[in-house]
Formats: sequence, C-alpha cells, structure tokens
Amino acid sequence: MTCDVFALANVGVQGLHPYQPGKPIEELQRELGLDSVVKLASNENPLGPSPVALAAAQTALKQMHLYPDASGFELKKKLAAKLGVSENQFTLGNGSNDVLDLIARAFLSAGSSAVFSQHAFIVYPIAVQAAGARAIITPAKNWGHDLVAMAAAIEPDTKVVFIANPNNPTGNYLDSDAVSAFLAKVPEHVIVVLDEAYVEFAEVADFPDGLGFLAQYPNVIVTRTFSKAYGLAGLRIGYGVSSPEIADLLNRVRAPFNVNIPAMSAALAVLDDHEYLRRSQQVNSAGMAQLCAGFNELGLAYIPSVGNFVAVELPCDALPVYQALLREGVIVRPVGVYQMPKHLRVSIGLEHENARFLIALRKLIEEGCFD
Amino acid sequence: MTCDVFALANVGVQGLHPYQPGKPIEELQRELGLDSVVKLASNENPLGPSPVALAAAQTALKQMHLYPDASGFELKKKLAAKLGVSENQFTLGNGSNDVLDLIARAFLSAGSSAVFSQHAFIVYPIAVQAAGARAIITPAKNWGHDLVAMAAAIEPDTKVVFIANPNNPTGNYLDSDAVSAFLAKVPEHVIVVLDEAYVEFAEVADFPDGLGFLAQYPNVIVTRTFSKAYGLAGLRIGYGVSSPEIADLLNRVRAPFNVNIPAMSAALAVLDDHEYLRRSQQVNSAGMAQLCAGFNELGLAYIPSVGNFVAVELPCDALPVYQALLREGVIVRPVGVYQMPKHLRVSIGLEHENARFLIALRKLIEEGCFD
Repeated sequence: MTCDVFALANVGVQGLHPYQPGKPIEELQRELGLDSVVKLASNENPLGPSPVALAAAQTALKQMHLYPDASGFELKKKLAAKLGVSENQFTLGNGSNDVLDLIARAFLSAGSSAVFSQHAFIVYPIAVQAAGARAIITPAKNWGHDLVAMAAAIEPDTKVVFIANPNNPTGNYLDSDAVSAFLAKVPEHVIVVLDEAYVEFAEVADFPDGLGFLAQYPNVIVTRTFSKAYGLAGLRIGYGVSSPEIADLLNRVRAPFNVNIPAMSAALAVLDDHEYLRRSQQVNSAGMAQLCAGFNELGLAYIPSVGNFVAVELPCDALPVYQALLREGVIVRPVGVYQMPKHLRVSIGLEHENARFLIALRKLIEEGCFD
Repeated sequence: MTCDVFALANVGVQGLHPYQPGKPIEELQRELGLDSVVKLASNENPLGPSPVALAAAQTALKQMHLYPDASGFELKKKLAAKLGVSENQFTLGNGSNDVLDLIARAFLSAGSSAVFSQHAFIVYPIAVQAAGARAIITPAKNWGHDLVAMAAAIEPDTKVVFIANPNNPTGNYLDSDAVSAFLAKVPEHVIVVLDEAYVEFAEVADFPDGLGFLAQYPNVIVTRTFSKAYGLAGLRIGYGVSSPEIADLLNRVRAPFNVNIPAMSAALAVLDDHEYLRRSQQVNSAGMAQLCAGFNELGLAYIPSVGNFVAVELPCDALPVYQALLREGVIVRPVGVYQMPKHLRVSIGLEHENARFLIALRKLIEEGCFD
C-alpha cells in the first residue's frame, strides 16, 4: 500500500520533502540535561507578548466555543483605516504563510511557473511545488535578490513572482528604486508578491512601502504578519493587501474560519499598543548592534540585516557548530536547506540572551570547534 | 484589470463562489435594535467552553509570542493513546476543514474526480473545485448518502470519496453495515474520507467507529474536530487519522504552524474533561428531544438527526421564515445552498434557547407567515 498511496498523490506533492516531526524545546532540554535554554532560532519577539494583546486574547477566549467572525470585520476595518486602503483589499490568513499558500492555490498549477530568488524564504518553493507549478529560481547577488535577473527570468507561463523584503534568512533588503524599476518591467499579468513579514524592523530611509505600489500596480500583493514585531507568532495571523479583485479571488479559496478568535482579538489590541512596537524595534536595533559588534570582535563575517535576525558566516560547516551550541544551551538556526551551509541564522534576543550566545560562540572558537 | 486578474486564476478557483463578507452578530443586533439574540445557527456547543480547557488556553497564551510546536508532539501522543493508533497516523488541522482541504490538495487536481452526496457538507464541493478536480455528486436517498449509488459513481479518475457521518446539515447517519459494505466495494486506490465531525453526539448502537476500519482499509481517512462536542470552534483544531503513508503525504502539504498555541493546549486539556463531554451529550440529547417534540406539536416534519442540530421542513420557502425569525432575535441557518430550500437547520441550544426558538416559530405560524 505504501507505494500505491504515494503514487496516488499529485506529482507536486510527491516532490515535497517528507515532514520531519520535531521535538519541543522542553524535550530537548530534558534530553541534554540543561537547566535553561536560550532560543534564538525562530525570529520570535524576545519581549514576550504585548500585555494589552495578552489581556485581549485571554478575554476573547471566553467565546472560544463559538466560531470566529469569518469576515474579520473589525480587524479589516481597523487595518484599512491604519494603512489607508479599503476593507475589500484584505485577505486574512492563518499567519502570512496561509496567504502565500492561497496565492499559490489561486494562481499556480501544473503548466505555470513562479519566479523567486535563491536563499529566499522557504515557503515559496513549498507552496509552488504543492500547487504543481514549476519553480524558476534566480541566483542571488551578494546573498540578496537580483531583481534584474528575476525580471529577465519571467517566462510566458509565469504567473507569480515572490519577493521577500527584507528577506529571511539573509536579512538584506531591496530599496525603493530597485523595487520600482522591477515593477515597471514586470508584465501586468504577472502577480508580484511583496512579502513584508519583517517590515516593521526595516527602519532605513530607502526601504520601500509596498502598499505605495498598489495604486500604480494592481498586480502587486503585499503580505504582512503579526508574528514578528507584534509578537503573535503562536496565534497565527497575517494578511495580504491587494486590489479588491485579487482579494476577491484569494478569499474564494480561503477557508472561512481560517483565523481563530484569540488571534483576531490580540491583533486588534496590539495595533493600539504603540509602546510595544516601539520597544520591539528598540530592543531589536540594540541587539543587532550587540551581535554585529560581537561578530566583528570574533572576526566573523555576517550579512548586514534589517530584520530581527542576522546570518553569520563561519569558516567551517555550520551544522557541527549548531550542535555544539545546542549542548551549550543555545538554539540557533542552521540554514543548509537555504543553500547556506556555512551560515547560522541568529534571531535577535534580549541583551543577556545575545550575550550568552556570543560567549558560547567564543568558547567554541577557543576550543577549536571551527578548525 | 478586473477581468485580467480573474482570467489569471486557476479555472477551478474562478468557479468558486465569491466570498460574501458577513456581519458579526453584534452588528446585526444593533441594526435590528434587539436586546438579546439567540443563535442556533452554527452547531456550536451551547454550554460555553470547558472551564478546564479555558484555563489551559489562557495560561498557554503567555507563550503567544512563540511559534507553536509544529509537530503537535504532546497532542498526538495523547490522541494516539486515547484512540489506540500511532502518533504517525495523525494530521493536525486548523479545524478539520483544513484537513479536508489538505486531502483535496494532496490527491485531487485537474484530470481527477471526487465523489460525494447531494446535501453533503459544503466544504467538499469547495475543496474539490479549488483543486481543479471534477465533482461527481450522487442523488441523496431519504436526505441521506446513498452509498450504493456512491460506489457505483466511482470512475477511473476518481481519487477521493467524501462521506460525512453523521452528515451536516441533514443530521442523518450511515450504520456500520452500510459503511462496511461500501468499503468492501471501493477500489483500494480510492481514498475514502469518513468525516466524523459530529461523532461524539451519535450515540446509537449501530453507528460505526471509523477508526475501526483503518486496519482493514488503508485507503480510509477519518477526520474529527474539537469544534463541536469539545467546544473549541473559535480556536480551530481538528485532525485526520489514516495510515502513516497517507499522513506523511498530508503532512507534506500542511503548513508547519497551522495549529495555534491556545488551540493545542485547550485540546489537550479538554480530552481530560470527561464531565464536559458528558454534559455536552446530555444537553444535546435533551435539547434534541425538546425541539422534535416542538416540531411534532407544530405539525412540522424534520429529518431524524444524531448530530447537534436538526433540519426542520417548512411548508413554504424557508428564507422568509429565517428572516422573520431574525426579527424575533433568533438566528438559525437557511440551507438553500444545500438544495434544501424548505428546510431550516437549527442547532441544539440550552433549554431556554430552544424554547425561545419554538415560541418564535409558533408565533410566525399563527401570524400566517407560512401561508
């Protein structure tokens, strides 16, 4: 039966990697006999939840026996006012991962293709493959998206281009001029996804506001998330902003109750918690400076990042270093699956967490772990 | 651009109904100027949340800035022990809707077909259509699935058969013998989904345990949910149980963080709240008796149901009655979209809620609303 079932699956699905069930941190901690673990692996907000959002979600749980509002009425109203767009331009998702999946399901199938960059966020190849479409992957330039190559890579059957800005796991970004020039070259029948999961951290003057392109380019979809700067990763909520026509199509595919009740309430609340967002940004920029200074001291190269993480380059294969760090109680992210076998992606933590990581890294260097 | 975008979408997606943004109850209540509303429309648990599950979810929210456990380690372990299957047989979903969608995405595409019954749960046609596959819909028999017709309807390109047991919105069920006979006839390369969203309410002796078929029929997938008897509709959590091979394929398509943190914690907790489940079942069977007695008194036919809802047949088009009930502050579910224009689906509520509905219905009859 094993082979039979496999053969029954859609070809694209057969090509997906088997799911690897992982162990929760608590299990790992028990196994390694560690008292405490510092996790700088998942680009989570090190501040913990916004107290305002936490209280809102806890109150909302009293309604947890009822179905969520399928239309996300209140949240769309609030987001529309905040972002200066209309309510009918939104597609709410179970995380922005869900929105990326909806885009693939709506526009891609066997016989069409999608363009994205080497080292780009891993959900793009998975969503494209699951939809049975062909992936056109352009080589990176200085670890970043090469938009000139990406525009040139568009073929007649290309339906979607995925751009992460800033990109995960590299942390680099595309400036306003580069994105403008790219959009001007893309045919209007090709959907361009600007994935802005980390946009709140990208506090640089020439960073483009994706939403600003919507009026001129109705083929653009901007995706954003509450998982990072807003600290709601565990609740799963993100959204897409696009033309009403694209939103209508994505909402046809969307499961009506895809966003849960506490997620919706927490998102509504955290949008008003300006202090939390400000502190998230401050802690992130301070932690980024701390880590980069540490890497400089240790003589390690890293990719300049505007996200809440930084990819550091080791003089050796990163996997054994990752494992040695685990034994020191520090979890970071190896990125071999992104064709970056010598890099480790380190999420920005609180000052003492970053310090503990740097101390552990220095110890490993001194022990000759990199030789 | 409107037409262009529409034409860009996959053909199956073009055929989906546009999403109709709905208004939350609070909005409706305001608009109709009603003090209180009774909602018997969504097959929700009228008891409110399990206090044990509520407390667990509220505690878990303190971790809401962290990603959920992608493998659902603890929940699978607990479910496996409870149900007598292995952990690698599970696929966790953002509601069982998500699992049904994953099945369609894994096995259906343009060039394949799926069989389901007239009046069957509406997610089947949507998931099939979104995947670009062909729907083969068999006529119902006494408002129920006609399994003989369904077996006969399987074509060479049929990949999946969807069976709801009990079915929503009709509430009727297929007994052990009927399902056994059906499975014996289905070719082993056709996946049979036994959707048991309402299984906990189906307390009749000849109701089949879908899980019991898994050993003999590795092409069976059983789907279940925490939304109904377990009262977690707002958190979105359900699961599939199948052969490990099928689970592996579904988990390849599944987004790793599809189940949120409070959902996972509440599900773990509610599995131990036997008293809540028992009360849910008791309140349901008492309410079902109350509603059916009321229908008998009013001379209205209904479809005998083993779910937590009942479809009552009116002597007239149900839509104006639905609207008249709204003005009385009672929300039920018109099921015209299920080709049942004369039925209203009424969820079982608490005694006073059921009574209020019956009083409103009697009032409308006396006012000549049915004439």
